[in-house]
This record gives sequence, C-alpha cells and structure tokens, in this order.
Amino acid sequence: MNLHGPDEPVFLPRGFFWSATKAGIKASGRSDVALAEVPMGASAAAMFTRNRVAAAPVVVGRAHLRKSKGRVRAVLVNAGNANCATGEPGIAVAEQSCAALGAALEAAPQFIIPSSTGIIGVPLPVGKLIAAVPAVVAELADTEEGLKSFATAIMTTDTRMKLASTEFSVGKKTVRIAGVCKGSGMIHPNMATMLVYLFTDVDAEPKDLPPLLKTAVDSTFNAISVDGDTSTNDTVLLLASGASTVKLAGSGVAKKFAQALHAVCASLAEQVVRDGEGAEHLVRLRIAGAKSVGEARTVARSIANSPLVKTAWAGCDPNWGRILSSIGKSGIAVDPSKINIFIGPHQVCRHGMAHPFDEKIVHEFMKQREYEIKAELGRGKSSLEFLTCDLTVEYVHINADYST
Amino acid sequence: MNLHGPDEPVFLPRGFFWSATKAGIKASGRSDVALAEVPMGASAAAMFTRNRVAAAPVVVGRAHLRKSKGRVRAVLVNAGNANCATGEPGIAVAEQSCAALGAALEAAPQFIIPSSTGIIGVPLPVGKLIAAVPAVVAELADTEEGLKSFATAIMTTDTRMKLASTEFSVGKKTVRIAGVCKGSGMIHPNMATMLVYLFTDVDAEPKDLPPLLKTAVDSTFNAISVDGDTSTNDTVLLLASGASTVKLAGSGVAKKFAQALHAVCASLAEQVVRDGEGAEHLVRLRIAGAKSVGEARTVARSIANSPLVKTAWAGCDPNWGRILSSIGKSGIAVDPSKINIFIGPHQVCRHGMAHPFDEKIVHEFMKQREYEIKAELGRGKSSLEFLTCDLTVEYVHINADYST
Repeated sequence: MNLHGPDEPVFLPRGFFWSATKAGIKASGRSDVALAEVPMGASAAAMFTRNRVAAAPVVVGRAHLRKSKGRVRAVLVNAGNANCATGEPGIAVAEQSCAALGAALEAAPQFIIPSSTGIIGVPLPVGKLIAAVPAVVAELADTEEGLKSFATAIMTTDTRMKLASTEFSVGKKTVRIAGVCKGSGMIHPNMATMLVYLFTDVDAEPKDLPPLLKTAVDSTFNAISVDGDTSTNDTVLLLASGASTVKLAGSGVAKKFAQALHAVCASLAEQVVRDGEGAEHLVRLRIAGAKSVGEARTVARSIANSPLVKTAWAGCDPNWGRILSSIGKSGIAVDPSKINIFIGPHQVCRHGMAHPFDEKIVHEFMKQREYEIKAELGRGKSSLEFLTCDLTVEYVHINADYST
Repeated sequence: MNLHGPDEPVFLPRGFFWSATKAGIKASGRSDVALAEVPMGASAAAMFTRNRVAAAPVVVGRAHLRKSKGRVRAVLVNAGNANCATGEPGIAVAEQSCAALGAALEAAPQFIIPSSTGIIGVPLPVGKLIAAVPAVVAELADTEEGLKSFATAIMTTDTRMKLASTEFSVGKKTVRIAGVCKGSGMIHPNMATMLVYLFTDVDAEPKDLPPLLKTAVDSTFNAISVDGDTSTNDTVLLLASGASTVKLAGSGVAKKFAQALHAVCASLAEQVVRDGEGAEHLVRLRIAGAKSVGEARTVARSIANSPLVKTAWAGCDPNWGRILSSIGKSGIAVDPSKINIFIGPHQVCRHGMAHPFDEKIVHEFMKQREYEIKAELGRGKSSLEFLTCDLTVEYVHINADYST
C-alpha cells in the first residue's frame, strides 16, 4: 500500500472541499477556523471522548449525528478555544455557529458538526467565529492546498501539521482516504485535545462505518499514550462522500478499506506521538504473550503512564526494574517468573530476574530517537504495539509555564 | 492528643529494643541495617504491596506471619537493595537472613520479618547482611536513640528521618504508639518503596489488629499520592508488645487506640509527601460531595496523578480546567454542571463553568509551600482528604539521572 505523509503528494478523496481562515480566536493571530464541506453530503461515523466533562461541540456533534442519522454536510472547526466548561451558553453558541454555517451552505444545522480545541473554561467568542463564516466558505477548494490549510488551522501546541493519505484500487476505480489531525500532549492530554478527520470517497451506508472506525481507532489512536478517552474534546470523525462510486458493500472492498483506514490512522497516531510535548524519544512498546489485546493494552498503559519509567527513558537509563514494577501494578494477574523484557535486541530481564547485559551498550542504544521495548508476559497469545514517549524536563517547562 | 514529630521527644512504647549498623549495602556507606526486637514477642498485623511483582521479603514476611499466627519476635530491615526481581534465590537469601537472626536471638525463623528497600533486580549481598547480625544485635537498646538509629538506617532517597509518636491514658496506665517510615517517591513510587513500622505497647490479640490497621492505613497512607498498592516492597507492619498491660479489648480502649494510631499514621504519611522527590508544593486535596469514600479516592487519585495538573501546580498556575478534566476522566459518572472547585478560599469553577476570580491573586496564593484545593462533586455526602504534591523539573532530574 502506498501511504503518503505530510510532505508527500496527497491522495485526495473526491467529493470534498476544504478551507481555512483567520477569525482572531488564536492569540497568535494564525488561521484558526477550518471548514470541510461535502456538497453531496457524506455518510459519517464518529468517536468522541469518554470524559464526563465533554465539551459543548462534542455534545452538539453527538446530537446532530443522531438527528441526521449519520449524514454530514460540513465540519466547522475552531482552534484557540475549546468551548468546554462553558455550560448551557456553550451549547447555545455551538448551535449558533452550526446554524450560521448551515444558512450559508443552505443546509439544516443537524448536518453540521462543530469542533473546538484550545483553552478551557473561557466562553467561545462566537461572534468572531460567525463573522468568519463567509470568508471560510469563499475559500473552499477541492485541492491539496485546501486540505493542508484545514490541517494547519486546527493546530494548537502542535509543532507540525499532521496528514496521511492512501488509495487502493477496485477494478478500474480507486478509493482514496486522507486524514488530518491535531494533538501533541504527551500523557493524558486533558488540554491537548486530539481531533482527527478522516475523509474518504468510498460509497458507504452510515450504519456500516462505526465498526470499521472502531477497529481502526482501537489499534492506533487508542494504542498511543495520547489516549482518546481522556480529553474533554477528543473527536475522531470519518466522512465518506461516495464520490469514488465504489460501494463499501462490494466484494472484497470492506477488507481493503479497513486496511487502508488502519494505515492512515496508524500514521497519524505516530505523528502525534512524534510531536509529543518535549519528547526526545519515541518508544515502541510491544506487549506479547497477553491473554487478550485488552490485557496487553492495560499493561502497555501502565508502563507508558508511569512517570518513573518515562523519566528513566529521558535519561537513557536501562532501568528494567521500573518497567517490571509497572507491569506488576497494572492490575493484570501476571506471574513475574514468566516475564521477559527486551530493550531493542538486548534482553535485560529473564523470568522476572536480571538478565546479564552490558549497561553501557544499552545506555548508548537508548540514545536513539526511536527504539522498541518488548515485554513478554507468558500468559497467552495476544500482543499489541503501543507508541509512547519519554518525560523530559522540557515537558514540565511547557506545562508549568504560567500563561493561562 | 499529644502528637510528637521527628524533632520532639518520643513517646517510647515499652517492650521494644532497636538498633542499626553499617553492613556496606548502601553505596554511600551509611547505616543500612536496622533491627527491632520484642523480647517477649509481639502480636502483629501487616499490609503488603498489591503489586504482582512482590519482592522476596514481602513473600517471606507474608508466609512467616501465617506460620507464626501473627506473632513476631523481630524485624530485620536492610536498605540499599530491594531483593526484588531476584527469583527463588532471592527468597532463599531472605530466609537465610531470618535464620541467622533467629539463631542469634534464639527464635524460630517464622518469628522474624525481613524487609528490604533499594535497587531492584540485583541479588541481595546476603553475606554482608548476615555478617552484620552480631553487631546490630549488640547495639539493641530500648531508647529514643535506638529508635532513631532504626529510622535513619531504613532511609534511601529520603532527605529526612520520619517519626511520629503519641500516647493516651487508660486509668492510671498509658498506651504508647511510635511509628517510623521511609518513602519519598512522588507518584506511583515503584522504586521508592514505602516501609512503615508501627510499635505499640497495647496488649492485643493478633486477630484484633488487622481491621484497626486497615482503617488507619486507608485514610492515611492510602490517601496520599505515594499510594501503597504500587511499589514492589511496600510494607506497613504493626507490632503490639503488650508491655503497657492495657488490654485492647478493655472498655473504650479500642476507640482511643484507633484515634492514636490514625494520628501517628497521618503524621507519617504527611512527612512522606512533604519529602516528595523535587516537590515544591504540598497540596491538600479535599474531595466533597462524593457518593462514597472510595469514589472520592478515585477522583482524588485521578487529579493527583495527572502530570498536567501537577505541572500546573509547579507553575502556580490556577488552571482549574485541568482539574475539572481530571475529575471527568476518573471513571466516576460525575455531572459537570454540579462541580465546584476552590483553590484555598478562592472559588475558580462553579457548576462546571468558570467562576470569576482574580488570577493574579490566586497565582500568588499558589506560591505558598502548602495549600488546599477543594472539589465538590454534588453527588452525595462522602468526603476525603488526600495529600499530594507538584511535579517539578527537579523531579525529572532526580529520576532521569542515569546512575543505576
């Protein structure tokens, strides 16, 4: 499969138009309103944050998808303000922005999905957002530049625009998927919301999309330390325009589509971890020998969210005891005497005990920007790859700077 | 109740002898072996780590208490090596050390409890430990100096010796409780094990002690961010010598004893948090309006273990949105519109929304070494106080320094 990243040509799905503009919501003055439109309407599936403190756009987006029975005409995103912890007034302004865009596009509000990311607890300056609607509608284009302007406008603490795309053939036709996202918080990014927009031109019924999306998200966005269930605004939205005229229900199409969707999501998830706040090392955790993938995920999270493990990585310290202990506290009934741990090719723990290794060599190995750590649990046959990163002094600086 | 800290005279329980010596296990060369002896034997209760990777002394200690039916003659602690992730050989050397001490004291090994703290995954130099037995036995004394030498020898990354004691009267007699502990890791201290030894001269049956200990631990050591269920070696041991001749089963004694035990444990727990690695601020989280104490604890842990919340505290940043979001991701089905948050006397969030406050004043307020943050959940009548601290650049330095 040909997978293209942010610096390569985009496999541009047909049926979509994108744009962005400056509404003055970001303090930096950069573009902060993004629009994606599907003139013929798209079938949609979405996964939203499980945080009980869900932002207003999440509440409104959920309600609109229900009302529209999974059909979407446009997505309106603003960065710079999360419209979260804003109560009923926050919901009202999210609805107002949908109504304003709907009027401009001649669509009912329930076909508009709103998204917000940025500061929490501050009323969204909805006047600025609504005033920007004519400009952002006027900019709509079915071009790579349009999509990239969308991907750039949704950034907050991100240092890099995140984009991935691919295509596959079905007979003489092609199906394309392009995804963009934002997110750079390292661990439990309550503030560094992750927003993901997946655009495809496959022809799908709304009911067929949610299971495909869930499968793709579970092994990608839910397998990084920026986990989707914690921010107040996290959203993954999949839109299928149908413009390829290739039916998802066609023979063999769903399988190809699932592979392509996974590839795009995996690339985006990796881009998020690589852009982790202050991160110096990307660690590819491979948990093997688990009884289930869920169990492997629980163990991976226990390791990936341990400040002691993450700070050891920052110091290139092959302190496998901290990893072993994190596995032990995961809540999974592991038997320590069956656990093996490897840092790259170097085994450091065997049957729960020290395995002789050259500390200097492994210390040097851990200076790489990216490497793998494998833990074998000896409980079953399930495994999982989980991406995470280290916890650096720079992370503390970024998040402790008093600048709210 | 008269509660004395580490710099005040100790209410010294009778029936105990303490000592310490240098066995050369700590790289620093400081005293690293501590002994507590009860010549007449003590009734005992213990709570050990729930980490599945339990250290050898934990495995052996559990077995000895079962075998001895809750009776203890002596406790032998070494610092500098955790005897963890050392497999069957680790268990054998823990047993050897108990046998050696037992021989010196003319006691069967099951009446000896071993404890270890320090580096993980390195075989315990049991020869050094056994060689130190005659010296540490010779030093035994029923004095304040003896107890303080014990409390000092068990320290690892601790910067301060931790000790608390109190007494209460029953008729013309007094019951005394003195506790010592070690522990300074800040969050999920997989390596900075917490060891707690509580000595009392109340006269108790072994079966009456576990519920009293559990109650005291739940509201103290289990209500700080150094939570007892994560390290590989965590141990809380309560020994009752009976030398006061006051029976725990006597009228009104158990209640007074429970209060005194709570006070000693609360003081020790607070000393641990104050000594948190790199901590600059002690935060007293008060969770109110929960449906149960367990629910309050879950919410408190979600706040206290959030790197984003902890780094905001390091920056004296009144970023209540991060606190609100941490409450939302705790797994408790909170209704955001019922949540209020206060930083000291300043309300910052009302009904899940911003409550107007002077940021400059609250920022100044948060520069204090210690303050309270209150979260009202609006769900019920249970509440909990939970001690925690901030996450500083210094914490990362301490834990990222490559020096294993």
